[in-house]
Amino acid sequence: MDKLIVIKIGGNIIDDENKLSSFLQTFAAVEGKKILVHGGGKVATKIGETLGIESKYVDGRRITDAATIDLVTMVYAGLINKKVIAQLQALSCNAIGVTGADGNLIPAGKRPVKEIDYGFVGDVKSEKINASSWAGLLNNGFIPVVAPITHDGNGQLLNTNADTIAQEVAKAMSSLYEVHLVYSFEKSGVLLDANDDATVISQINPSSYQQLKAEGKIFAGMIPKLDNAFAALNSGVKKVMIGKAEQLQQLISGEAGTSITNS
Amino acid sequence: MDKLIVIKIGGNIIDDENKLSSFLQTFAAVEGKKILVHGGGKVATKIGETLGIESKYVDGRRITDAATIDLVTMVYAGLINKKVIAQLQALSCNAIGVTGADGNLIPAGKRPVKEIDYGFVGDVKSEKINASSWAGLLNNGFIPVVAPITHDGNGQLLNTNADTIAQEVAKAMSSLYEVHLVYSFEKSGVLLDANDDATVISQINPSSYQQLKAEGKIFAGMIPKLDNAFAALNSGVKKVMIGKAEQLQQLISGEAGTSITNS
Repeated sequence: MDKLIVIKIGGNIIDDENKLSSFLQTFAAVEGKKILVHGGGKVATKIGETLGIESKYVDGRRITDAATIDLVTMVYAGLINKKVIAQLQALSCNAIGVTGADGNLIPAGKRPVKEIDYGFVGDVKSEKINASSWAGLLNNGFIPVVAPITHDGNGQLLNTNADTIAQEVAKAMSSLYEVHLVYSFEKSGVLLDANDDATVISQINPSSYQQLKAEGKIFAGMIPKLDNAFAALNSGVKKVMIGKAEQLQQLISGEAGTSITNS
Repeated sequence: MDKLIVIKIGGNIIDDENKLSSFLQTFAAVEGKKILVHGGGKVATKIGETLGIESKYVDGRRITDAATIDLVTMVYAGLINKKVIAQLQALSCNAIGVTGADGNLIPAGKRPVKEIDYGFVGDVKSEKINASSWAGLLNNGFIPVVAPITHDGNGQLLNTNADTIAQEVAKAMSSLYEVHLVYSFEKSGVLLDANDDATVISQINPSSYQQLKAEGKIFAGMIPKLDNAFAALNSGVKKVMIGKAEQLQQLISGEAGTSITNS
């Protein structure tokens, strides 16, 4: 099986021109087949304020009303995605920008309203991701760069969590490739002390994860990422790495960050 | 040779939700391989005003400063392109949205400053368009939908005329396909009387074009379109049609609009 690396880059790197530029250089140099998934960053909030679109959050999740889905579509799929594409092309990386609507690459459904109405937020329909469509891009030498927008198949665009997109695409591609999933962000990995980058846990497996959680050593923000990582491993993804964007190469080679394994 | 239809849709259709929706239904029903190129519409100007970005024009061409290239990238490649993609996907048309930066599909250069500095405006490098990259998308069942943005290969996005993009892509694809190029807009075709849709000239060839121009019967706005059409025919495009977006099917079949031919 051919190897495929799916890399998620966090919004805070997107917000920092120098960090982004340096990350993209490292990404461009990664050999073999790869997919980049980027978060949204804070620029949407800033542009939204100027446009009089108020950002509303519940439990850290943006509530996406009609004005907001237009805003994030403009900013994520337009401004951010295309700037990344132009930069990668300048680095001879044949990037092509996509959302989940393009080529129906990530079918999703509007999140059902329970306690909270998240608005135009998409939940990915895992089983409907067509790995062959993605492979069609990869086999033609394109490097997909994914903006965190999906669609419902009925014409509605949907705001979708980039971590989830990375995980779902990684899972779906496991039928065709040996997939390594890399979550790169501002921390050096999963930390014992959230404020001390030197306390990276180099390896986590299901039993050590249970123990770390029971001892309260994993801070809340990491739990969804780790749950996603184990879900990915249980669905065929070979390896999940979490760590610093600046250390992408070492993350991929296993010399830095936290490695999540199934045993 | 396989047939390929390249269709340009004007900004005024993009601005009208009902007309756009009706056009996209017709486009989705067009059989065989096809590429859609869309203009920008007026929504960029409107959003720009709200953001405090003033629209500047010289000779009908937008002057694209740094704030404006960000604006049009957001609106053309983000908002407009992705809404079109989501609508086409709902019509079972496997559309994929691209700019000229994506997959390096349309290499361009910043327009040299002569009398006027157009800013970040791109002139397409015809000879550098890679027809195989486009064919890679088409052969995988993707229908490319192109937003009028290109790049200079050094990381800079460039605002680029959509008519020109349609023409250049059509020309480049002539090496691999029998290409028909369709300019669809608000008029029924090239008119003898710009205010009377019944005065469509059904066919124009180089000698009748010279005569019509000499007699002042072609209004100024049509001349660049016709010049582009003949340039396309001289570079391998098989057929060029100009006419009403609402009559797309009849335009393609030659039952409506103006047909531009080389003899």
